[in-house]
Amino acid sequence: MSSSFGTLFRISTFGESHCKAVGVVIDGCPPGLGLIEKDIQVQLDRRRPGQSALTTDRQEADQVIILSGTENGVTLGTPIALQVANKDHRPKDYTNMQDIPRPSHADYTYQMKYGIRASSGGGRSSARETIGTVASGAVAAKVLKEKYNIDIVAWVSSVGEIEAETVAFDTITRSEIDKSIVRCPDRTATEKMTALVTELKDLGDSIGGTVSCIIRNVPPGLGEPTYEKLEAKLAQAMLAIPATKGFEVGSGFAGTRLRGSQHNDPFIRKGDRLGTETNNSGGIQGGISNGEYITLRIGFKPPATISLPQDTVDFSGKSAVLEAKGRHDPCVVPRAVPIVEGMAALVILDMALRQEARKAFQFKK
Amino acid sequence: MSSSFGTLFRISTFGESHCKAVGVVIDGCPPGLGLIEKDIQVQLDRRRPGQSALTTDRQEADQVIILSGTENGVTLGTPIALQVANKDHRPKDYTNMQDIPRPSHADYTYQMKYGIRASSGGGRSSARETIGTVASGAVAAKVLKEKYNIDIVAWVSSVGEIEAETVAFDTITRSEIDKSIVRCPDRTATEKMTALVTELKDLGDSIGGTVSCIIRNVPPGLGEPTYEKLEAKLAQAMLAIPATKGFEVGSGFAGTRLRGSQHNDPFIRKGDRLGTETNNSGGIQGGISNGEYITLRIGFKPPATISLPQDTVDFSGKSAVLEAKGRHDPCVVPRAVPIVEGMAALVILDMALRQEARKAFQFKK
Amino acid sequence: MSSSFGTLFRISTFGESHCKAVGVVIDGCPPGLGLIEKDIQVQLDRRRPGQSALTTDRQEADQVIILSGTENGVTLGTPIALQVANKDHRPKDYTNMQDIPRPSHADYTYQMKYGIRASSGGGRSSARETIGTVASGAVAAKVLKEKYNIDIVAWVSSVGEIEAETVAFDTITRSEIDKSIVRCPDRTATEKMTALVTELKDLGDSIGGTVSCIIRNVPPGLGEPTYEKLEAKLAQAMLAIPATKGFEVGSGFAGTRLRGSQHNDPFIRKGDRLGTETNNSGGIQGGISNGEYITLRIGFKPPATISLPQDTVDFSGKSAVLEAKGRHDPCVVPRAVPIVEGMAALVILDMALRQEARKAFQFKK
Amino acid sequence: MSSSFGTLFRISTFGESHCKAVGVVIDGCPPGLGLIEKDIQVQLDRRRPGQSALTTDRQEADQVIILSGTENGVTLGTPIALQVANKDHRPKDYTNMQDIPRPSHADYTYQMKYGIRASSGGGRSSARETIGTVASGAVAAKVLKEKYNIDIVAWVSSVGEIEAETVAFDTITRSEIDKSIVRCPDRTATEKMTALVTELKDLGDSIGGTVSCIIRNVPPGLGEPTYEKLEAKLAQAMLAIPATKGFEVGSGFAGTRLRGSQHNDPFIRKGDRLGTETNNSGGIQGGISNGEYITLRIGFKPPATISLPQDTVDFSGKSAVLEAKGRHDPCVVPRAVPIVEGMAALVILDMALRQEARKAFQFKK
Repeated sequence: MSSSFGTLFRISTFGESHCKAVGVVIDGCPPGLGLIEKDIQVQLDRRRPGQSALTTDRQEADQVIILSGTENGVTLGTPIALQVANKDHRPKDYTNMQDIPRPSHADYTYQMKYGIRASSGGGRSSARETIGTVASGAVAAKVLKEKYNIDIVAWVSSVGEIEAETVAFDTITRSEIDKSIVRCPDRTATEKMTALVTELKDLGDSIGGTVSCIIRNVPPGLGEPTYEKLEAKLAQAMLAIPATKGFEVGSGFAGTRLRGSQHNDPFIRKGDRLGTETNNSGGIQGGISNGEYITLRIGFKPPATISLPQDTVDFSGKSAVLEAKGRHDPCVVPRAVPIVEGMAALVILDMALRQEARKAFQFKK
Repeated sequence: MSSSFGTLFRISTFGESHCKAVGVVIDGCPPGLGLIEKDIQVQLDRRRPGQSALTTDRQEADQVIILSGTENGVTLGTPIALQVANKDHRPKDYTNMQDIPRPSHADYTYQMKYGIRASSGGGRSSARETIGTVASGAVAAKVLKEKYNIDIVAWVSSVGEIEAETVAFDTITRSEIDKSIVRCPDRTATEKMTALVTELKDLGDSIGGTVSCIIRNVPPGLGEPTYEKLEAKLAQAMLAIPATKGFEVGSGFAGTRLRGSQHNDPFIRKGDRLGTETNNSGGIQGGISNGEYITLRIGFKPPATISLPQDTVDFSGKSAVLEAKGRHDPCVVPRAVPIVEGMAALVILDMALRQEARKAFQFKK
Repeated sequence: MSSSFGTLFRISTFGESHCKAVGVVIDGCPPGLGLIEKDIQVQLDRRRPGQSALTTDRQEADQVIILSGTENGVTLGTPIALQVANKDHRPKDYTNMQDIPRPSHADYTYQMKYGIRASSGGGRSSARETIGTVASGAVAAKVLKEKYNIDIVAWVSSVGEIEAETVAFDTITRSEIDKSIVRCPDRTATEKMTALVTELKDLGDSIGGTVSCIIRNVPPGLGEPTYEKLEAKLAQAMLAIPATKGFEVGSGFAGTRLRGSQHNDPFIRKGDRLGTETNNSGGIQGGISNGEYITLRIGFKPPATISLPQDTVDFSGKSAVLEAKGRHDPCVVPRAVPIVEGMAALVILDMALRQEARKAFQFKK
Repeated sequence: MSSSFGTLFRISTFGESHCKAVGVVIDGCPPGLGLIEKDIQVQLDRRRPGQSALTTDRQEADQVIILSGTENGVTLGTPIALQVANKDHRPKDYTNMQDIPRPSHADYTYQMKYGIRASSGGGRSSARETIGTVASGAVAAKVLKEKYNIDIVAWVSSVGEIEAETVAFDTITRSEIDKSIVRCPDRTATEKMTALVTELKDLGDSIGGTVSCIIRNVPPGLGEPTYEKLEAKLAQAMLAIPATKGFEVGSGFAGTRLRGSQHNDPFIRKGDRLGTETNNSGGIQGGISNGEYITLRIGFKPPATISLPQDTVDFSGKSAVLEAKGRHDPCVVPRAVPIVEGMAALVILDMALRQEARKAFQFKK
């Protein structure tokens, strides 16, 4: 059940880096939603490699096809199968790495888990697997936009030591973020990040970074305590993205250094609802959304595949030097932005469906 | 489905802070395991309030009873129901807070989600709910110990700004950690933490902190990519604990500032298996355990309930000052230690069962 | 995950025949519902042994306690734990059967599955396990009654060869059915059934039978094709009841002998909705309720435990004669009536919650 | 979650009758299994329309493609996506039926459930949806054959009133059954059935029937009481097949008329294991396989779509006469045979994986 996610809006993804196609089946999409390929393609285009000089040189069109679940551009409520063909089958680039598990990659663990692994690329552990997440996440985001006017916007908040300064949480948009080649809304930081990534690309090295995400207009009441608290499912969702090492909601680790009197978010009246003056809670209290912005930060390690030679051992335990020859990103965070947005949408929509079921049955006290 | 966790070793918890009992039903525990109340009680005793001068003064014995699923001290393979009576029913302490949602607590969000909430304490959002996690986690840990010799040890790694220095990952034990009143294995840090917590208790304030956790002897191959990667389920598990704001595995957020050439863990031969020289991966690569120590860090915010008066509004939006009168912990991390251990055990065992199913069917290529 | 059932209204049961208690945790019950023990007890009283001269002589009060999830008689939306104490611990009656697996009982298969089994009674396979079903089913039925005015009524439609004549589907009620000692609404059949069961009780033999069930006022639209079609989940639910061997919906096996021109249910106008003139479909078409009565029939084999001596072998394969000494029902169908009603309620409510979630998101074409 | 089935071997199907493709994603297939398209195609060929003069005239090649999850003809342990293109898009045959819901078909209930429905054919309710079941079932069956030597064989046991005489349970094979045009192993019955179906085809009418299924070599211990008893999941699986109205295991409804002394299956020694002398239990006791043959019977109603004119009403409630013009089977049971086999394989394999997980952890008492 590992490649499925969600309870009522449930996705099941498939595909390795070099099989015939990758894709996703969405079960539980509400009926009557306008949906055409273009709604999905826009996020896949933000995910695909070869978008800029900073990312891998592979040019993959990654055109999505809707195989089922819609008619005349409207969802039927039946499973929506989305598919992207792999153009780049079984390349030769990886053959010299067959016997040497790439350090900090998944070659060794896949072999140990399955007793077999794809002979090229990362197989199922490849970032290509995230196409299903991004495609289904785009559908979920459309539902959330039309039903609640929810906005989900992610951006690069750091690359290595370079951090973006404060971002305009109220107004930031995807198109604004895309003006930056590294998807960082801070212009000065963008320049520094670009220079660093370019340098590392030339060096054959890589660098980590963080992606931040804001979710606006989430109604209060989403999240299913106790084991499916909203932040718990968001944490699972984000740590399921390749290369992630950390997750924060609201004040995150910085909040652990504060006192209750500093950290608590006092309630205030906001129009006809209650809101909070500060938002250290990150829009979630007791595992349930409170109507404030949901704020997340996700940490990505530097990509494991680098061109610099690495001293390691082969599968038999014999010393070896690995020199990777494939085409790889020196920094994944710009391309991780739509993946984070996609996972966020999948979590929020599933929770919203579950809460609407409850609300429909809510008895008066 | 919110109060259930796990696929093959599946728990379902119940109970509010002031109902008749709290507890858990464990479905899928392997048969033939020796199991008596004492195996579980030891971890509940580490969780319960009133253990030391630093925690809340409530004295709750929290005696667990095994209602079903064992005979003559051996598990039958049938559901194991565990129950702890609530001695402290419906107290009056909270009545004056009825109309004012406590800032950064779950009063407001529960009301918005359910249209009703428990009239006292935190109801289901109370830390009392974690009894089910700790109790079932103790059972899971016993299975893991007997089957794989797995050790799961958590400790307080920081309180506020005070951080524990490096800990002896190879040898640290629960009993060693319990020698510290704050469950921090670093003696100097313990003293500083104790002083800080005592001061805050007197002030009526609270403070956050972090818990670190190491899991030793996990066999390679656990974790179910892509959405149930090992770190993804651990992240969900940890963020399901009340008051958590962040999660890290391996190098965590610090790893985002490194280069690939620094961060990658080269393989080396370790006896008859492959291991890694460094462990920035935290024992997990591609979502699957690699046989190295699994290392986690979890961030806890300062407890929301403080005695200091707080300016806020009541449910109707009218200005109010809240002065909490209940008995509360100024710092939750020492008591969070067995909860973190419990959640870790639940995740690892569920993944181990799933991997053993796969292994039983593995065909030769 | 074997002792859990449902997706949004999810139950987890526990308890063997002779442990401390049996019970159930209900996760996902809508908040704000009036709920006290009496609402549940009424169905448990219809299930318990010793109700009449026809059933086993054991007198078990089977008093249910609500441990959690309600306050002041109203549901909180949190897990509702229900518990019934076992008064009759570890009896001696079964000790002489230890080495001989009872024919057509679960002794052998439990031993093969778990490598261990409860030393007395049926352990988890005992009919006592159905207490959790009946108790949680009573809660589900109350939700359905208050929300949709749904009625669920089951009755004994045959005992051995004796069949009840046509029943008044529009008006039949539980109290009317309870006027019959065998819960058969047909007076003549009741007399014959009573005579037969009495005779078999004296003989130490047992007899099978069928239970029919009607569900009125189900709104159209419930059921989740394709693998959770309404009849598919009802079939699972009913075959999960001990001693069941068959399931029919609508025309059932009799319908397999008809032609399409005879079997099809033409549509007619019924007030402001469409209905069908006949109901061979049993209220379900394409896996989805159509608003007509849902009609089911469930077949129960004769109870396996009989007093007549049986030639069989012991666990080691050696010939043996089994003479059961326990107290057992010669015919289970009268007591199966509330179990069937309970399982039906669990299925319908879970489906209704899922459909309400969908409806809340339904977009206009 | 409606189009998914299984816990460890989990399938997710997609596709309507006239979208671009239908298919299935299999998650959790054991790695290392030899698997090529031909392994699957053989069962799809038995399912597809146009096989004989008795079935619909549509000629659909239904060629399956493996999109992912294998490399060099061996499974990787990753999701296996299987796809069959729909050649027959959006035909005109159905346009005149748009406003009239076909009696006993799913037009009305889909419209009520989703507020929208596919404009042609049955959409998702079409028998075309079963391609995913058959394809994934063929993979499951291959796993079961290689691991346990399990055989699953189904056949037509009745058409209308015509019943097959006793079948050779020990030796019956799929190829033997395929020698009959109606897939009935009884030659005399075959002739009568053929005559009846031919007559009804000419009349524009249809007829129901039953399919029986035997599963040989199932190890003892499969099935997950209490809600996922083996017969319960088999019942769900079979009632999820379109047009099914009834399910029996072992003695079925006939068993309800027997006494315990007649129905009980005495144990006998069979080589080094215990077996039973008779098999009224149908290979399952207490919800768990006992090592004997598992025997099932499934009832199918007559196909709803007939050419004979039918008096009914349109969606607005106005009287109408429906004369269907599409191409349809007068009797579905011959084509249902591989569907029943597929569903059986999916259930058994999922249960086997779960039991192997348990066995790997079984502790000695």
